Amino acid sequence: MTKQELINQIKAKKSFLCVGLDADINKIPKHLLTLEDPIFEFNKQIIDATKDLCVAYKPNTAFYESLGAKGWESLQKTIDYIPNDIFTIADAKRGDIGNTSKMYASAFFDNMNFDSVTVAPYMGEDSVKPFLDFKNKWVILLALTSNKGADDFQFFKENATQLFEKVLTKSQEWGTDENLMFVVGATRPEMFTQIRKHAPNNFLLVPGVGAQGGELSEVCKYGMTKDCGLLVNSSRGIIYAGNDENFAEAARNSALKIQKEMGILLENIL
Amino acid sequence: MTKQELINQIKAKKSFLCVGLDADINKIPKHLLTLEDPIFEFNKQIIDATKDLCVAYKPNTAFYESLGAKGWESLQKTIDYIPNDIFTIADAKRGDIGNTSKMYASAFFDNMNFDSVTVAPYMGEDSVKPFLDFKNKWVILLALTSNKGADDFQFFKENATQLFEKVLTKSQEWGTDENLMFVVGATRPEMFTQIRKHAPNNFLLVPGVGAQGGELSEVCKYGMTKDCGLLVNSSRGIIYAGNDENFAEAARNSALKIQKEMGILLENIL
Repeated sequence: MTKQELINQIKAKKSFLCVGLDADINKIPKHLLTLEDPIFEFNKQIIDATKDLCVAYKPNTAFYESLGAKGWESLQKTIDYIPNDIFTIADAKRGDIGNTSKMYASAFFDNMNFDSVTVAPYMGEDSVKPFLDFKNKWVILLALTSNKGADDFQFFKENATQLFEKVLTKSQEWGTDENLMFVVGATRPEMFTQIRKHAPNNFLLVPGVGAQGGELSEVCKYGMTKDCGLLVNSSRGIIYAGNDENFAEAARNSALKIQKEMGILLENIL
Repeated sequence: MTKQELINQIKAKKSFLCVGLDADINKIPKHLLTLEDPIFEFNKQIIDATKDLCVAYKPNTAFYESLGAKGWESLQKTIDYIPNDIFTIADAKRGDIGNTSKMYASAFFDNMNFDSVTVAPYMGEDSVKPFLDFKNKWVILLALTSNKGADDFQFFKENATQLFEKVLTKSQEWGTDENLMFVVGATRPEMFTQIRKHAPNNFLLVPGVGAQGGELSEVCKYGMTKDCGLLVNSSRGIIYAGNDENFAEAARNSALKIQKEMGILLENIL
């Protein structure tokens, strides 16, 4: 998907919501467990209930890997089921030496047809570039994450530059705002001003709204660009809004509430 | 596996060789391709031919993921086939927020029974700790990698401390030399002195010998401890030593050559 296609989708749906498909076999409604593929069935109903309200879906691969080969099949079926005009993110946080990153890129882009993969920056250029070589596919590079452990290394400081800033600037030598986004946690909205200095035009994938405590309006205040420039993710707050036969409806209501708030926040720029 | 069990194995086999099971469907001998699971068959024969010469096997998960659910099955069969007294490393370079890292840990430790997983440090403490919570299992944390891209961020310097040094010291607040190893590339043997200042007793997993150009004797000169303290990996140099019906024998010969060199290097300490 191109940047313009993503922006068009945001405008049409008045939404920049990404739904995190972190389907956990221990948390999905019990009545699904008798079906042949409960995880896919759960995702399918969530997708049906939310696809007009969100512009992206983000399965975190950990949840599928924890079920082995069967989980991998559920992930494949899920990605195949998501409508083509919705942006898809393999939240995999991969990164390895060049020839190995190429295998990961092939796994997510060739085999599974994801639009993007989250990538960890620690191993540098040759770990990231193989993902950037795919046309109309995206790297979403970890910059400033939403978890407490972000403090351990991401604020490490050489002269006036913090490590997450170095990641933002260095990586833009490898990609452009047409194929490179960054992960920036919503738990630190005041940091978005600093982020935007280094990445004025890149889309940012923002986890941490909802269960992790981030505020949507704060994120937009400091992080939104004239093209929106944000994909705000919610996982647990949407997919586990209900836990009985009506879980999909509950998920829709939860997504709708966020989409309405987003519609208002978008009014200034669209 | 405990540290002492690993040391005992090194002494018994006079080897600290780790064989990287990076089985690539495009590189394995053609005659295997007609079999039902060529990747597993390849690994099985490599394991049979090298298991008395090495102390560890390290499948890189990228090679299996690139084949989807089928690859994941080949990986499961491979790990089940490796004898229990040999140390196993899931070279997965995972790392995510706490509850998600827990899913990865469960995938590799509970479901697949690996002894260890390689983990990327960028997201800090809560991304690493869930792996350390498993008894007699290991985290192998990326510190100084063997690839060119290592230069981009790993040498980032706050005052006199480089990022890879910060990773070495900070992570030892979370784990001990009984459950925490580090990845240090063989392509920078002169760095081992500096590494050992910060991690005198931790085992180091050393990729980059062979195809990537690192020298075994140099690595030992600067990195070996009284307990050996090294697992030196070779992947392509062993598993693709031959590419016809005799590939397993060629792999054995290649592994034997390294084991003999290791036997001599171990004489000083065992």
